[in-house]
Amino acid sequence: MSTEGVSIVTDTPLRLSGVVPPLVTPLTPERALDVSSFERLIERMLAAGVDGVFPLGSTSEVAFHTDTMRAQILAEAVRIVDGRVPVIAGVIDMQTPRVLEHVAAAVDAGADAVVATAPFYAVTAPAQVRRHFELLGEHSAVPVFAYDIPVCVHTKLDPRMLVELGAAGAIAGVKDSSGDDISFRRLALLNRDAGSPLAVFTGHEFVVDGAYLSGADGVVPGLGNVDPAGYVRLHRAATAGDWEAVRTEQDRLARLMEICLVARDTTGWGAGVGAFKTALELLGVIGSRQLPEPFDAFSDADVARVKEILDEVGPRA
Amino acid sequence: MSTEGVSIVTDTPLRLSGVVPPLVTPLTPERALDVSSFERLIERMLAAGVDGVFPLGSTSEVAFHTDTMRAQILAEAVRIVDGRVPVIAGVIDMQTPRVLEHVAAAVDAGADAVVATAPFYAVTAPAQVRRHFELLGEHSAVPVFAYDIPVCVHTKLDPRMLVELGAAGAIAGVKDSSGDDISFRRLALLNRDAGSPLAVFTGHEFVVDGAYLSGADGVVPGLGNVDPAGYVRLHRAATAGDWEAVRTEQDRLARLMEICLVARDTTGWGAGVGAFKTALELLGVIGSRQLPEPFDAFSDADVARVKEILDEVGPRA
Amino acid sequence: MSTEGVSIVTDTPLRLSGVVPPLVTPLTPERALDVSSFERLIERMLAAGVDGVFPLGSTSEVAFHTDTMRAQILAEAVRIVDGRVPVIAGVIDMQTPRVLEHVAAAVDAGADAVVATAPFYAVTAPAQVRRHFELLGEHSAVPVFAYDIPVCVHTKLDPRMLVELGAAGAIAGVKDSSGDDISFRRLALLNRDAGSPLAVFTGHEFVVDGAYLSGADGVVPGLGNVDPAGYVRLHRAATAGDWEAVRTEQDRLARLMEICLVARDTTGWGAGVGAFKTALELLGVIGSRQLPEPFDAFSDADVARVKEILDEVGPRA
Amino acid sequence: MSTEGVSIVTDTPLRLSGVVPPLVTPLTPERALDVSSFERLIERMLAAGVDGVFPLGSTSEVAFHTDTMRAQILAEAVRIVDGRVPVIAGVIDMQTPRVLEHVAAAVDAGADAVVATAPFYAVTAPAQVRRHFELLGEHSAVPVFAYDIPVCVHTKLDPRMLVELGAAGAIAGVKDSSGDDISFRRLALLNRDAGSPLAVFTGHEFVVDGAYLSGADGVVPGLGNVDPAGYVRLHRAATAGDWEAVRTEQDRLARLMEICLVARDTTGWGAGVGAFKTALELLGVIGSRQLPEPFDAFSDADVARVKEILDEVGPRA
Repeated sequence: MSTEGVSIVTDTPLRLSGVVPPLVTPLTPERALDVSSFERLIERMLAAGVDGVFPLGSTSEVAFHTDTMRAQILAEAVRIVDGRVPVIAGVIDMQTPRVLEHVAAAVDAGADAVVATAPFYAVTAPAQVRRHFELLGEHSAVPVFAYDIPVCVHTKLDPRMLVELGAAGAIAGVKDSSGDDISFRRLALLNRDAGSPLAVFTGHEFVVDGAYLSGADGVVPGLGNVDPAGYVRLHRAATAGDWEAVRTEQDRLARLMEICLVARDTTGWGAGVGAFKTALELLGVIGSRQLPEPFDAFSDADVARVKEILDEVGPRA
Repeated sequence: MSTEGVSIVTDTPLRLSGVVPPLVTPLTPERALDVSSFERLIERMLAAGVDGVFPLGSTSEVAFHTDTMRAQILAEAVRIVDGRVPVIAGVIDMQTPRVLEHVAAAVDAGADAVVATAPFYAVTAPAQVRRHFELLGEHSAVPVFAYDIPVCVHTKLDPRMLVELGAAGAIAGVKDSSGDDISFRRLALLNRDAGSPLAVFTGHEFVVDGAYLSGADGVVPGLGNVDPAGYVRLHRAATAGDWEAVRTEQDRLARLMEICLVARDTTGWGAGVGAFKTALELLGVIGSRQLPEPFDAFSDADVARVKEILDEVGPRA
Repeated sequence: MSTEGVSIVTDTPLRLSGVVPPLVTPLTPERALDVSSFERLIERMLAAGVDGVFPLGSTSEVAFHTDTMRAQILAEAVRIVDGRVPVIAGVIDMQTPRVLEHVAAAVDAGADAVVATAPFYAVTAPAQVRRHFELLGEHSAVPVFAYDIPVCVHTKLDPRMLVELGAAGAIAGVKDSSGDDISFRRLALLNRDAGSPLAVFTGHEFVVDGAYLSGADGVVPGLGNVDPAGYVRLHRAATAGDWEAVRTEQDRLARLMEICLVARDTTGWGAGVGAFKTALELLGVIGSRQLPEPFDAFSDADVARVKEILDEVGPRA
Repeated sequence: MSTEGVSIVTDTPLRLSGVVPPLVTPLTPERALDVSSFERLIERMLAAGVDGVFPLGSTSEVAFHTDTMRAQILAEAVRIVDGRVPVIAGVIDMQTPRVLEHVAAAVDAGADAVVATAPFYAVTAPAQVRRHFELLGEHSAVPVFAYDIPVCVHTKLDPRMLVELGAAGAIAGVKDSSGDDISFRRLALLNRDAGSPLAVFTGHEFVVDGAYLSGADGVVPGLGNVDPAGYVRLHRAATAGDWEAVRTEQDRLARLMEICLVARDTTGWGAGVGAFKTALELLGVIGSRQLPEPFDAFSDADVARVKEILDEVGPRA
């Protein structure tokens, strides 16, 4: 257990804070789970001091993998982590009944908490979004985090609703990938006014410093796959109130995050996760930058673009 | 086999045209599949002369039901239909590997064709959307229909790509629920220029007449659960070139479709499918208007609003 | 006054129907109004039998031209038309007070009616949109048409509100460029139920036939600059109930409308209006295909793409 | 001239930094400009230490006022300010030729700089957006600021383009109201790498602290009408590197900004500017909370909601 504020508060079943990277899922060139790469990835994160890991999130290719593959990924993550930090499992699916099935599987597999989005595919209004999280809270044996990611699910979670769900015990925290820093500030203030029922995390690698000023408890950075130590340093500096150090680290990480914006042969989701995997391959952490169908691994030209940035502002391997 | 143009062309493995309603999934109040209601629903459609049925679409609550429930729905549909018309099964899921698993299950269950959307949740660019359908075409033992439904998946399928996929044999048809009649006209013209590799269906109950003028081969009307005979009449009139009859029938069906716009206590997806189920309950076709979690069945006040319209312009029970 | 249904009903001050093209604004290479080209453009339309003309709409570059230029365009249009058909002037601006100033100018210049959009730039809710049109109706000395064009103003006009505004005498008609054929069907039905207070026009060149089946009174086709006779034939066939003729003409016009989709060097608004101007230059109707800043005239390569389509399915010059 | 970094750098014609509130436009109940209220508003800001004022922006109701009214507002602002700080005038209109006319008028009226958005109404692609700003830079006798406000103009300005325009001398700065803090971080970093050709301002009252960490030169806060001293304190604390003071002030201002979210009888644009005016009326700074047509002044119930927040966390009058 860390002694520098990057810790799990123990007066509640799970009070998470700090750095909780969403794990990429290393694939072999044949698109099977590459277990030894997965081990290297997770061990490197734990060595860097992360406070939890998040398999089966968007970065983990959860939208692509079959339930069988999901089960394998989660089982391996739980096995490798072996209780050293909490494992927060994504339970991403379209609507409540399907999500509840993933919740049950995740609990059985040993997840310490689950992360669920708003319903998607079928247009769902605020009253049903609220009920969705109430049902998840009611039926989950572990804490539920709400994942606010409108770019994927096309619904924005209302900060007031989230704090009410927290106060009612339905959810334990929020991962905010909404791209809306105003909403995040409001969430943090409303949460504080309600006695902080929620742990609030930002998912935006570029602007973690602002989120900490707003009152974030931690960060869930996809880029934390590539540079976990950087985000751990940033979190510790923020906890210590050393904002110039925060800003300096953030500026470097923002420059590194440009790897997600340079690909020309792959776009959309694949440009971001593909860049993480490419950087990890270049760093020797994983064996292959392969992506799931219908995406291809980065082209050589795109690899070169990632390498240039990684060499300039990336972590030392 | 119908002799009035509402038929399956037999010189290709499956050349569908006519009326293919997406089946609602009748639930008991406890949210189990209500098999006897499902039988009445399908038998009433077959008696009305529909040309196929489409279980596991958006109207069928596919986004809500677990894979176990999906399997049960499809098995019952295949059993009840018993080869009298083709069964076109939805294989709706987020990304290619998950969709392929549903394709295999649908084929095993006896589906005559499958219907797949563009990938969703993870942002997917046109090149990957194209590859998605190519992979489905390659791996499916039955014809694949592309389901263009941006309101659910937030990607519009390009008409030129669809026709190219059709010419290449990857897809056999399109269900257009895009809300874009310009795109549909372009699809129909491009398809004709390419030798009509695709069967093109509209999913828009309000404006089927315009789609037929544009060159639609048929219609996949959610409202066809409530009034299958109306859409069969409309299709036959269009095939016969009796456009005044088409228009008159369409005007009545458009007025009936207002049931999907009157609910006040339920909004979004639930307002539409909830209205279909409410009308079917009022007509005595199904036992309960129940909806899946996180939606509630229509309130009494909303039932009254549906009943008023149904009494005025609905089919006789 | 036409005797073939393409007429102005005279029992109300202005009951418009038929074909009312939005006029492109011919520019010299130096971007001044090219008056003699404007004369040729309008005379050709009148010779083709159009039922009105619409200067200062989106197609007329109204968003670009200064108030001085707007005044010149409208004055010339009124002078050239010389009372032979109604002149319907756009009064496009952001919010009510600015629009009211354009209304006064248009009335002074001799416009027979004005066309106004929903407010834009500042986000405006339905209650204020309604009040906007009420104020226009109250202060305009000529009939007001509501212009439903969400692609430009990012607000969709509700059909029920429009019919209520019509019944209250605030507006006399609607030009629907909403891209929403379901909404248009509902508008037509609601309008009929209310005693047809509104004249309803579609602005969608590709699917005018479907709009007529839905109950359109006429069409405002940008492509009517290039092929006014085609739209006049289509309207007359629809009025006569000859739907096969309607469909045949529409299919050809849809193929011609592809000129708006082929440009590679110009995109967005300029691709459409630039194509109309390019075709008109190729047909010898206007002297230059120039566009207003910040757009450039079509490149030679794009001109060649337009020419190929024009040669194949365009009108004879 | 301030000595605390809230100053105009004098080695370029205009190097703005610090707090530059967008001025509300006080109206009489009859919707004429209330000059004496305007004087009190501006004098109170200057007393608080603001570094510039911004008339004719979105907050100033620029979308509503006629050109005559715009001229009056700017003339009065220039007269009242009387050279004590720069006057940055909005030149908001749809497309380049109309904007250029406003630029000329603003320069004639004595504006020290102008603020222009991307083109709107007619869909305009990146190449034309760039040319738009190049033309403004070429033809303006005073520095041009780019106003990134997609909620109004529905185009996001690309950070790389902005920095290139700055390096080329076309624009002198950016007011970012894009709601995209990731883009703002990238803008700040790219600008620094290019030698800081741009002064970059945030327009987001809720999260100014994060913007300063990202490298903002200043802030353009609508809420600065209500509490100019708060934003001046925040800016000075940021300049001094006292981030705990920044955060404390920001948290209070964020709570005060909730006045823009409490109205129930007015929504959209009117809810925000209506709240500013209501607070200013309550503080005795302006005579009336009147809004331009088609908006109404806040209802008494909404005034009470604003008053509650103002009493709790607002400035002392």
